[in-house]
Amino acid sequence: MKIKPKYFDDFHIGETFETEPNLISKDEIIDFASKYDPQAFHLDEEAAKNGPFGQLTSSGFMTLGKSFTQIFNTDVFNGSSMGAWGLDELRWTKPVYPGDTLKTKVEVLEKKLSSKPNQRDRKVKTNCFKSKR
Amino acid sequence: MKIKPKYFDDFHIGETFETEPNLISKDEIIDFASKYDPQAFHLDEEAAKNGPFGQLTSSGFMTLGKSFTQIFNTDVFNGSSMGAWGLDELRWTKPVYPGDTLKTKVEVLEKKLSSKPNQRDRKVKTNCFKSKR
Repeated sequence: MKIKPKYFDDFHIGETFETEPNLISKDEIIDFASKYDPQAFHLDEEAAKNGPFGQLTSSGFMTLGKSFTQIFNTDVFNGSSMGAWGLDELRWTKPVYPGDTLKTKVEVLEKKLSSKPNQRDRKVKTNCFKSKR
Repeated sequence: MKIKPKYFDDFHIGETFETEPNLISKDEIIDFASKYDPQAFHLDEEAAKNGPFGQLTSSGFMTLGKSFTQIFNTDVFNGSSMGAWGLDELRWTKPVYPGDTLKTKVEVLEKKLSSKPNQRDRKVKTNCFKSKR
């Protein structure tokens, strides 16, 4: 789903949108883990069998980046984003396995003026979840 | 700096440690952005000149993964981690440019029993900062 790029005034509190889905592959999980989260249960299929999830799982940092990219690819922030100041209450609630399909739902929670001149803040709730295969 | 892997009882509130530094390269910034954060100011050196930072900057998701990997590479959680439930109050306070060197300081803030059997939680504050070149 593509969305026309939005600026501050275009966001309305309570509005929601959903992204396109992406399939998560074993190769991507292992490639990401080797650089950014080299825990055995993200990196090594054999070792992961004895790990906390009993099988290989994606790094939560990877699903965070995938989810953001899904949102970005709707074009909603394309050209209008000035970068993010941070994240609050990030929770990884379910393990993500090779072959899972993820998509992201976004809800606009809050809009406020920034302390920086010419910048405005919008706070969104994003929920990245497994969709039906 | 290597640390002997620690379990719940080995962490003490208030203890701190620092990681080894890593140099952040332009190639890594662009490669990461192409997959996990394709905003122009992380992905395209020319376009970034007209962006909010005036030059190419690293994705904050990349520095998050780098910082975690720095911590992991101390061995402190090696074999003892059962995965993370989330992150609170993540703040990206300064842009990270190609050629910057980052390292991470960790402080143990809190220890508590988990609601899950056989699991225990420790909450740490991590601060990833630019070190002198």
